[in-house]
Amino acid sequence: MTISDIPTPALVVDLAAMERNIRRMSEYFASRSCKLRPHFKAHKTPEIARRQLAAGSCTGLTCATVGEAEVAATVSRDILIANELVDRSKCRRAAALARQLAVTAAVDSAEGLDQLSSAATDARVVIDVLVDLNVGQNRCGVAPGEEAVALGTRAAGMRGLRLRGVMGYEGHAVGIHDRAEREAAVKHSMGMLAATATAFAAAGLPADVVSGGGTGSYDISSAVPGITEIQAGSYVLMDSDYGCLGMPFEQALFVLGTVVSRAVAERCVIDAGHKACTKDHGQPSVKGMKDAIVLGLNDEHTIIAIPAASSIKVGDRLSLVPSHIDPTMNLHDALYVLEGDNVIDVWPIAARGYGTIDRSRSA
Amino acid sequence: MTISDIPTPALVVDLAAMERNIRRMSEYFASRSCKLRPHFKAHKTPEIARRQLAAGSCTGLTCATVGEAEVAATVSRDILIANELVDRSKCRRAAALARQLAVTAAVDSAEGLDQLSSAATDARVVIDVLVDLNVGQNRCGVAPGEEAVALGTRAAGMRGLRLRGVMGYEGHAVGIHDRAEREAAVKHSMGMLAATATAFAAAGLPADVVSGGGTGSYDISSAVPGITEIQAGSYVLMDSDYGCLGMPFEQALFVLGTVVSRAVAERCVIDAGHKACTKDHGQPSVKGMKDAIVLGLNDEHTIIAIPAASSIKVGDRLSLVPSHIDPTMNLHDALYVLEGDNVIDVWPIAARGYGTIDRSRSA
Repeated sequence: MTISDIPTPALVVDLAAMERNIRRMSEYFASRSCKLRPHFKAHKTPEIARRQLAAGSCTGLTCATVGEAEVAATVSRDILIANELVDRSKCRRAAALARQLAVTAAVDSAEGLDQLSSAATDARVVIDVLVDLNVGQNRCGVAPGEEAVALGTRAAGMRGLRLRGVMGYEGHAVGIHDRAEREAAVKHSMGMLAATATAFAAAGLPADVVSGGGTGSYDISSAVPGITEIQAGSYVLMDSDYGCLGMPFEQALFVLGTVVSRAVAERCVIDAGHKACTKDHGQPSVKGMKDAIVLGLNDEHTIIAIPAASSIKVGDRLSLVPSHIDPTMNLHDALYVLEGDNVIDVWPIAARGYGTIDRSRSA
Repeated sequence: MTISDIPTPALVVDLAAMERNIRRMSEYFASRSCKLRPHFKAHKTPEIARRQLAAGSCTGLTCATVGEAEVAATVSRDILIANELVDRSKCRRAAALARQLAVTAAVDSAEGLDQLSSAATDARVVIDVLVDLNVGQNRCGVAPGEEAVALGTRAAGMRGLRLRGVMGYEGHAVGIHDRAEREAAVKHSMGMLAATATAFAAAGLPADVVSGGGTGSYDISSAVPGITEIQAGSYVLMDSDYGCLGMPFEQALFVLGTVVSRAVAERCVIDAGHKACTKDHGQPSVKGMKDAIVLGLNDEHTIIAIPAASSIKVGDRLSLVPSHIDPTMNLHDALYVLEGDNVIDVWPIAARGYGTIDRSRSA
């Protein structure tokens, strides 16, 4: 099977580029005390996570949901669910996982602690918890400092739970294009995280895990004293948004489409629209075609302006460079693995989607 | 099972509202010569399509892809694939379907005709074709008039194909908010479509199918003399974008989420982000909460500004009203069917996604 046999639209990965990204990140962390906890949400693909962990320098995996953790459990024995679990069903699923592997969850409320404690106690397991801090993203998380210490103190006394420390995601800062500005914003956020860990220790609370960071900040956050692990995900496949930041990672992920129309000389249309490649971080670009301009993505079509003299014809294949990896991966069920133009494997994107009837039954 | 047992994020449908939408659309077309060909791409859910067809006034189903048509074949014996099929594999799949049911495909190129003809001849079937016209959307389609007649003439002479007429989608016009402006733009586009059908007839070409329209134009396009069927999809479940147009259809589709954080008084965060509810047509709104303002959607979170005095707490459930139904449906594998707060069924969104390994094997 070669690239021309793949039914389009389809996600494809340049395996050699992906392996280089994995190696570079692993080598970066090899000599540091801060380690990597790759974020599974970026790709939801067990085979990629397996390779990330096998490369070394990792504490475990990060997941966004308990559903992801259930899938990632096939490749990791140490999973951080870096979001709040607050309902009984999800806490029970987390507790069920904690029978087989080390499970850590983020908390930012007393209600969340109660539910996790109850589920852990019922299942006779221990769930590790990190107090989630708002380090400037203004999404979830309690305020650094006193408020965090108060929630940590509460957590430390609860049955079935083991407080491990703090986490905070500087999501407002990881994408800032200017390096100096990004560095300042990231250091400010991670400084609040590290200072709260110090306050935990001063209050006699455990703070051996101080978790934060992402692809855009891995080499900034990891250098802040006290940060113990970085939750980077996108680096492994990359997207054009992170591609602007000048990092040592290569674009390895593409959305393959077929030209279905060239009814006029100045544009062509491919069969990969925004149901195949999201545009929430801007339009994708066309791989290897500097003179092609993406005019727009509809549900099933990408409309591309091309020079009138271009030889592109109906049936040709073009590759889009996604602007945002996470939601684009989430649109597909399979990832075609390329060595040159040969398809050497097809990996299930096993954790994609919501509402799989089988998965909800396991709730 | 009630709404509070559904694992979030999840798609839910208010069944009674959906049934009213189906009945209203069916009644509109009952007394007209122009009929409805509901667009399956809006929901990808066979059980919804079955009910749309059972209500009457339909010529068959519209699909966007051959993969959708393969799934929709379980509920319809007459399917229009309203996009260009140009590669051998997809044309073969369309030909395989044509063994069991009437299959029509859109064409805008000689290459597309060649591939379809070859696949139909090999499979010893007939595939119906419509010449696709660019009626102002500037996506696919040949120019109305002479160019269309030339492609129609070519199609009429090809083995395995049966020319049926023309289609054109006024996608640039269906969403115009001002009714008078929308009406003018739609009539202009549909006028080009009807005039080309007349030119087909004058050239001795078949033109018994003249297909166009959408939810935003169903009552305008269907009144243009010569238009034989309307490809509306969104009307059955609706979204907030079409909801602005003042049509007689109710919002029946919602994305259910759980409040996972209320760390500060002035905002809450739910566990349904843009992996569960797209924002390509703008932010969703919160059902039944006029004082709630969606500040943003991240991958797994929607951040909502609420009054500081609001009683919303961690664990509560909120429903988002999606701004764009088609790509939102495409994010989920199942649709929970509600009568009041009771879940009476769970329908598979059987045609969602790309790259399903099983489906690619059938290619």
